[in-house]
Amino acid sequence: MPSDRPGSWILSLSCPDRPGIVHAVSGLLASHEGNITESQQFGDPDTGLFFMRVEFASHASRDELDAAVTDLAERFTMTWTLDVAGRPMRTIVLVSRAAHCVNDLLFRERAGTLPVDIAAVVGNHETLRDLAEFYGKPFHHIPVTADTKPESESRLLALVEDLGVELVVLARYMQILSPELSAALHGRAINIHHSFLPSFKGARPYFQAHDRGVKLIGATAHYVTADLDEGPIIEQDVDRVDHTATPETLTALGADVERRALARAVGWHAEHRVLLDGHRTIVFS
Amino acid sequence: MPSDRPGSWILSLSCPDRPGIVHAVSGLLASHEGNITESQQFGDPDTGLFFMRVEFASHASRDELDAAVTDLAERFTMTWTLDVAGRPMRTIVLVSRAAHCVNDLLFRERAGTLPVDIAAVVGNHETLRDLAEFYGKPFHHIPVTADTKPESESRLLALVEDLGVELVVLARYMQILSPELSAALHGRAINIHHSFLPSFKGARPYFQAHDRGVKLIGATAHYVTADLDEGPIIEQDVDRVDHTATPETLTALGADVERRALARAVGWHAEHRVLLDGHRTIVFS
Amino acid sequence: MPSDRPGSWILSLSCPDRPGIVHAVSGLLASHEGNITESQQFGDPDTGLFFMRVEFASHASRDELDAAVTDLAERFTMTWTLDVAGRPMRTIVLVSRAAHCVNDLLFRERAGTLPVDIAAVVGNHETLRDLAEFYGKPFHHIPVTADTKPESESRLLALVEDLGVELVVLARYMQILSPELSAALHGRAINIHHSFLPSFKGARPYFQAHDRGVKLIGATAHYVTADLDEGPIIEQDVDRVDHTATPETLTALGADVERRALARAVGWHAEHRVLLDGHRTIVFS
Amino acid sequence: MPSDRPGSWILSLSCPDRPGIVHAVSGLLASHEGNITESQQFGDPDTGLFFMRVEFASHASRDELDAAVTDLAERFTMTWTLDVAGRPMRTIVLVSRAAHCVNDLLFRERAGTLPVDIAAVVGNHETLRDLAEFYGKPFHHIPVTADTKPESESRLLALVEDLGVELVVLARYMQILSPELSAALHGRAINIHHSFLPSFKGARPYFQAHDRGVKLIGATAHYVTADLDEGPIIEQDVDRVDHTATPETLTALGADVERRALARAVGWHAEHRVLLDGHRTIVFS
Repeated sequence: MPSDRPGSWILSLSCPDRPGIVHAVSGLLASHEGNITESQQFGDPDTGLFFMRVEFASHASRDELDAAVTDLAERFTMTWTLDVAGRPMRTIVLVSRAAHCVNDLLFRERAGTLPVDIAAVVGNHETLRDLAEFYGKPFHHIPVTADTKPESESRLLALVEDLGVELVVLARYMQILSPELSAALHGRAINIHHSFLPSFKGARPYFQAHDRGVKLIGATAHYVTADLDEGPIIEQDVDRVDHTATPETLTALGADVERRALARAVGWHAEHRVLLDGHRTIVFS
Repeated sequence: MPSDRPGSWILSLSCPDRPGIVHAVSGLLASHEGNITESQQFGDPDTGLFFMRVEFASHASRDELDAAVTDLAERFTMTWTLDVAGRPMRTIVLVSRAAHCVNDLLFRERAGTLPVDIAAVVGNHETLRDLAEFYGKPFHHIPVTADTKPESESRLLALVEDLGVELVVLARYMQILSPELSAALHGRAINIHHSFLPSFKGARPYFQAHDRGVKLIGATAHYVTADLDEGPIIEQDVDRVDHTATPETLTALGADVERRALARAVGWHAEHRVLLDGHRTIVFS
Repeated sequence: MPSDRPGSWILSLSCPDRPGIVHAVSGLLASHEGNITESQQFGDPDTGLFFMRVEFASHASRDELDAAVTDLAERFTMTWTLDVAGRPMRTIVLVSRAAHCVNDLLFRERAGTLPVDIAAVVGNHETLRDLAEFYGKPFHHIPVTADTKPESESRLLALVEDLGVELVVLARYMQILSPELSAALHGRAINIHHSFLPSFKGARPYFQAHDRGVKLIGATAHYVTADLDEGPIIEQDVDRVDHTATPETLTALGADVERRALARAVGWHAEHRVLLDGHRTIVFS
Repeated sequence: MPSDRPGSWILSLSCPDRPGIVHAVSGLLASHEGNITESQQFGDPDTGLFFMRVEFASHASRDELDAAVTDLAERFTMTWTLDVAGRPMRTIVLVSRAAHCVNDLLFRERAGTLPVDIAAVVGNHETLRDLAEFYGKPFHHIPVTADTKPESESRLLALVEDLGVELVVLARYMQILSPELSAALHGRAINIHHSFLPSFKGARPYFQAHDRGVKLIGATAHYVTADLDEGPIIEQDVDRVDHTATPETLTALGADVERRALARAVGWHAEHRVLLDGHRTIVFS
């Protein structure tokens, strides 16, 4: 029996492009009395893929919708997600010592402006335990050394599974994930790099930026891949700097750019607005 | 008989919101073997209106498509436009003495980065004749005084009709259109105001901005309505200024902001990306 | 006896413009073996005032420098401040229920990226006590009603005096200061208004902005004056929005703009980079 | 004999840092009854250099000022320029086929918003002759092939000398200057590179940017050096792009970013606001 008020849903999908996709999807919605409130579509001529995100209201149950989309997806070879609109995405945040990014994510969750449900904060240092706990989040200290790395990553992955985690955010986490862990978290781990990629890959980007004398500094939020600093870019932002800036000033200014870019990327991902298109992303922002 | 390569089309529409609109539109496209390349939809809960823009490829002729959309539009009480994608929109530009906006539009047309076909430049002064003519455009000098205003506006309107003009751009045109002419050009006349509306309405906004000591100056591209500076906003932009700026400096810096905001607004309008939603706009940019 | 390493100082001043000011100031510095590391000057032709800010290193004691500047200031009728570079400015933050601005200021103080020493947080509600206390700050609950306003403002002013407060920040404090208190805090109270002033003065600016259909939202940090929303502007910032934004979305996006503009204004003020020039400001950023 | 109204001057200088520089400069000005209207100083701890730019009004003649600065410069080992404020800088613009940058420079010169006096436009193609001539500028066609390059560069350098050129602007000039010519034009040739350096050096940066899936595109104005794309950066700017952008769209959007960054760099250089600090720049904007 349908409830009095319709549920609000998000369907995101991609598939090989061909005529009739939108008609099939909207037909599915129509047959469940779905009313579209916001939708975007895009066909990439380079990859031959078609992308669609639709928010709709419907009295249908999840089972009904799931069954219908499963059928459709088979016909069109779709990759898809169906979710309740506004449902907070189950997330863990990996940190080291720098607080600005995780502080921002925790604050936004509490303010109700970021649809995440942060299940835990994991640090390879103890530094940020008090911050996590102030926000009522369990803090797990998982130190990482060259010797313990495989074991540490196993613990991390176990945590991801135990807590039902959908998204892993590397909030200035100063450890490189192994290719195996990167693969295991494919498409559900977001890193913030403190430069405007592909500029200043690798270590100490603000020192590199200072040395080169750039007039803008940037930050890049991207999906984690085994190939460091080469993951699909979700969001980038910049801020203006001038000759008076030292590497330390750049670091402080950059912190704002980093947290802004990361928060946007996480929010878009949590609302199923980001779709993978080869090594690039479609962002229906 | 269909040609070998499909035509590329843009359909933009708005109508009272209800279930089934997208399905009906995509059904129409499917029945003409239309393939969607880019599409956006939005339902405004405030006004109860639904908006849609779809770019698609189809072998169908314009007559076939027109007939099909006409039928559909009747069922859903749609306001709609069907156009060939990329077709330059027939435009005239109204100017006074300031060259920066019209120069920008003419340059972009010639560079092929703005889909307009500027049929003429109309000035209430002779100042910009040489610029118009350099770009191969007829220049019409229609002076305006309090006495001649009705007659001047009649000449202008006649020109709009004779030249098959779809869009009138007021590129720092220093005359206020009468309520009658504003009504006659409803939804197809775009003005650039040299402030971040609703700040600094009326005359000499840069002097007002200087006096108030603002730290950003702006410009606003909007549809012309009888109610001056109150038309639906299409685009706004700003630039940073500091205490060293005089009103003259602000005017020079602002010129860049104006031409940028105006060019974007004109481009989006010409690509049928702007839809009226009461006194606001939907911009599928 | 001078110490081994020179002290680092900031001298900010304004006075009626006339030849010889910079020479006199630099002479004073030279006679104390001062070495200039950064300096800016500006003469405003509108107000006839001259402004200067200089950072310098010197072995001289504060007493020596104070005495020298006092002499000079008399000759040139200067308003001036001499401070140790980097000294955190003694500050209290006034709040109501919204956390984003005060959270940002507290975080930046702890991160060492904002030169303030927040002596207390004062709320007319209890809401933000836990946040203040997490950062180790005393929280004073001073409720305000129409009847108790004079008494509440007296308590506030007493606190300012008792704590040696140099700067009062209204971090989305939802009470209007009386003309008397505004006067008492002249030039040392900064408010953040959640619109791009002079647009959308008064109540509920994001609702006004939504209704007007603007394409950018903004925030304005300004000195508090008796004339509400008319104080000298220190900093403004904006962010892009589109037709999908509701007033609630605008409020959430605006929160980021507010905290950014406020933090910059507070930082510049604390570093003596902001000088009053009539109802406008000079910002040597 | 001094005129009734004082002249307006700009003095820009750099030298090894040590106490007393500002005092010496302001003393020089004071002894010529100079009144400072705007000034900035900066000492770079990395290079040990001190930089200063001062605008002042004085009745002194150029000869008097020149003699005084020459003396001073000897004492402090200064590199310096003394110029009449607002004097247009004698400039030639090198072009190939793309018009957007040169069109912008020519337009700004005519509008009086860029203090340059463009003496000629030089193209390695004939394409832009009509544009140059519309603005009343001589156009020199100097084709360049592998064989003729030395001879072409000699012609170019002769033109620079014959026309009294102070600044050479490479406005999307698609030829690489030889090390010899780069050296000959050291510090007086500005290039615009169509990427956010150091990202996407070399050929076809917009194709590289598209392939990498960046979310912002940029442009960089820099002094020409023998080491391609490594010259000191004067100005950078960016614009936001999304997944719908093709390399062609990026190219069109980027054209706006390029012309904006280039015009700012040229304007600042012409006003003696840019000083070389090793392989970086000081910009007193």
